[in-house]
Amino acid sequence: MIINFENYYIRNGGITAPHGFRASGIHCGIRKNKQKKDLALVFSTQECDTACVYTQNLVKGAPIIVTQRNVADFKSRAIIVNSGIANTCNADGEQKATKMCEMLAKEMRIKPTDVVVASTGVIGQPLDLVPIKNGLKQLVSELSADGNNDAAQAIMTTDLVDKQIAVSFVLDGKDCTIGAMAKGSGMINPNMATMLCFVTTDVNIDPEILQKALKYCVDDTLNMVSVDGDTSTNDMTTIMANGLANNKRIDEQNEDFDIFVNALYVVLMNLSRMIAADGEGATKLLECLIEGAKTQNDARKVAKAVISSSLVKAAMFGKDANWGRILCAIGYANADVEINEVDISLASENGVVKVCENGMGLNFDEEKALEVLKADEIKVCVDLGSGEQKAVAWGCDLTYDYVKINGDYRT
Amino acid sequence: MIINFENYYIRNGGITAPHGFRASGIHCGIRKNKQKKDLALVFSTQECDTACVYTQNLVKGAPIIVTQRNVADFKSRAIIVNSGIANTCNADGEQKATKMCEMLAKEMRIKPTDVVVASTGVIGQPLDLVPIKNGLKQLVSELSADGNNDAAQAIMTTDLVDKQIAVSFVLDGKDCTIGAMAKGSGMINPNMATMLCFVTTDVNIDPEILQKALKYCVDDTLNMVSVDGDTSTNDMTTIMANGLANNKRIDEQNEDFDIFVNALYVVLMNLSRMIAADGEGATKLLECLIEGAKTQNDARKVAKAVISSSLVKAAMFGKDANWGRILCAIGYANADVEINEVDISLASENGVVKVCENGMGLNFDEEKALEVLKADEIKVCVDLGSGEQKAVAWGCDLTYDYVKINGDYRT
Repeated sequence: MIINFENYYIRNGGITAPHGFRASGIHCGIRKNKQKKDLALVFSTQECDTACVYTQNLVKGAPIIVTQRNVADFKSRAIIVNSGIANTCNADGEQKATKMCEMLAKEMRIKPTDVVVASTGVIGQPLDLVPIKNGLKQLVSELSADGNNDAAQAIMTTDLVDKQIAVSFVLDGKDCTIGAMAKGSGMINPNMATMLCFVTTDVNIDPEILQKALKYCVDDTLNMVSVDGDTSTNDMTTIMANGLANNKRIDEQNEDFDIFVNALYVVLMNLSRMIAADGEGATKLLECLIEGAKTQNDARKVAKAVISSSLVKAAMFGKDANWGRILCAIGYANADVEINEVDISLASENGVVKVCENGMGLNFDEEKALEVLKADEIKVCVDLGSGEQKAVAWGCDLTYDYVKINGDYRT
Repeated sequence: MIINFENYYIRNGGITAPHGFRASGIHCGIRKNKQKKDLALVFSTQECDTACVYTQNLVKGAPIIVTQRNVADFKSRAIIVNSGIANTCNADGEQKATKMCEMLAKEMRIKPTDVVVASTGVIGQPLDLVPIKNGLKQLVSELSADGNNDAAQAIMTTDLVDKQIAVSFVLDGKDCTIGAMAKGSGMINPNMATMLCFVTTDVNIDPEILQKALKYCVDDTLNMVSVDGDTSTNDMTTIMANGLANNKRIDEQNEDFDIFVNALYVVLMNLSRMIAADGEGATKLLECLIEGAKTQNDARKVAKAVISSSLVKAAMFGKDANWGRILCAIGYANADVEINEVDISLASENGVVKVCENGMGLNFDEEKALEVLKADEIKVCVDLGSGEQKAVAWGCDLTYDYVKINGDYRT
């Protein structure tokens, strides 16, 4: 994917930045800690064309099943999300997710099938609908054009920071915007993570074309993020397009489509980096840039293997330029690679150090390598030396805190 | 694989338990810490039929390449192993591994091509042959029938305990023995790990049949161990058979072959458990038992996915019966599974608690679950409910110490 970063303006406002979107987020009582919001709402003043991608786990959260059903007509108006309980692997999960949609629809006087529903948190514990029911009135009454922060906070689980972005650009002479919020943190792996990502836009676009754009961008962004190799049951990314920018409707893969895809890539790429940087326990963002691969698929496989290696991740935490582990991960990535052609460099804002050439170790300056690895953002640059294809993947280091967070998540 | 554990007698003596094998292990100076042995030798008084399996990583350690060449004739007499330096990804690695064989062969007056050579330790740093050369005389002079402990210690890297076993049994009316030693610890994953495993036997067996037996048993044992998902560059398992038991030579897959395979399975299964239990930083051995799978391959995939999940591993460390993570791992194992048929129980010496039935959470006793998970050895029992196939995989919990050990391995 060749990205043009010019003509795209990154701005504040997150999911409510595009015209016609409102959001809110409250603490309703699903989570015990009253400081933590646990219920989010996003609403569009107009009906939206809608596209979604979902987890590839065979275990699918009940909300996913209900959402799939609701957006089968490619239409939606609202998103309701709770954190704390995943509403997955419970006998009455589907019934409860349906009920959530119905309660919201009644409160807002919209169709229940125009609601996207999502849940994130512990699997297998029952979801109590009472706090949601009791909180709905407040949730709806607090909807506002600057409710993006509250909503972004209400979908967080072990995330330390909320994740939002908005990008504005010109399409068909109209000012257009894409806004988004996401949550990530643990159980994050390529092919959709416990990651919820909600995108809004005022662009006017056909839903089938919208689905193509979403799939295309997700493959190069959210599906290239790994925190711990676990693929969650409840992942979803939804994009709602309400058409209020009044551009000529995009209904084919024309130049406007390319402009839109570029903008969506910028949005999702930035969220991917935020999710990786805020991986559970992470102290560093790792970015693995692969070039010189024979195929795109090889490039992706290698990038993901490096970013997912527990040993590479632990070495980065320890600021240890143990490049042998990087080469080792390249070797088991199940990709078509000529090991004798592989060059590896480590880079950060503190400099660049080449550690491996043609598959063999270089006698590099350890002091300089340590300096490079002290930064908060490390680039692992790999030239496979046998083709033209590239890929980027994002991950984080493996730390004591990852173990601490996940050793005792439910209590 | 249906195993008969009767008629197999587990005994002391490790790799020197079978007739005609001698071993030794010394500190020669590759490792700085003089308390840590770093050079091991195993020797057979008779030439041995030999079979090997190697890492599937594209990056292969130089010793692997040299060993493959040396045992191309299915013959060997001796094994030399150093720890501390992996002799991998260095321009002169193959030359040095060849030289190790030549130096040993000269000292022992055997053929250089009868030497199996292995190295384990840091990748990409040069191996200094001087300490090996200087230590050879002592190494050879200390060969003895009870040198198994010294040899098993000299191949350890971050292992906390040495790993040895021997099994005796009767074949064709003769007393036969298989002995073995292994090292494991980090960078351990299915399809051969940084795991060196050396097996000796006095059984008389054709090398092609021996190779079959080894492959067959490794698939169900060492290839079902995962500590951290990383597949090492230097893994190998070698079996040397010197025939001194004087049984009728096994040259087809007859009843004697079955008895031998049973014994080899017992040896490798026990080593697999030892390797998993001593995984880097581990406090618990995890054993995942899958039954009710549609195919053997599905059973293996599911068992490996559960045992490899960072989230399951961290939950076990935290004694947290977070079974949703187990079901989640089953869901992304890329196996043919009916999630609605899945039952999960957790078991240990402290009892059994069923946590999931037909893919849904049970309202189990958390106190009892905590009691079960306090044990040092946890069984995760999964009935997939849709077939007859079974598999077992072994792993360990993910702990602070794993991160500590791997965050700063080279210093």
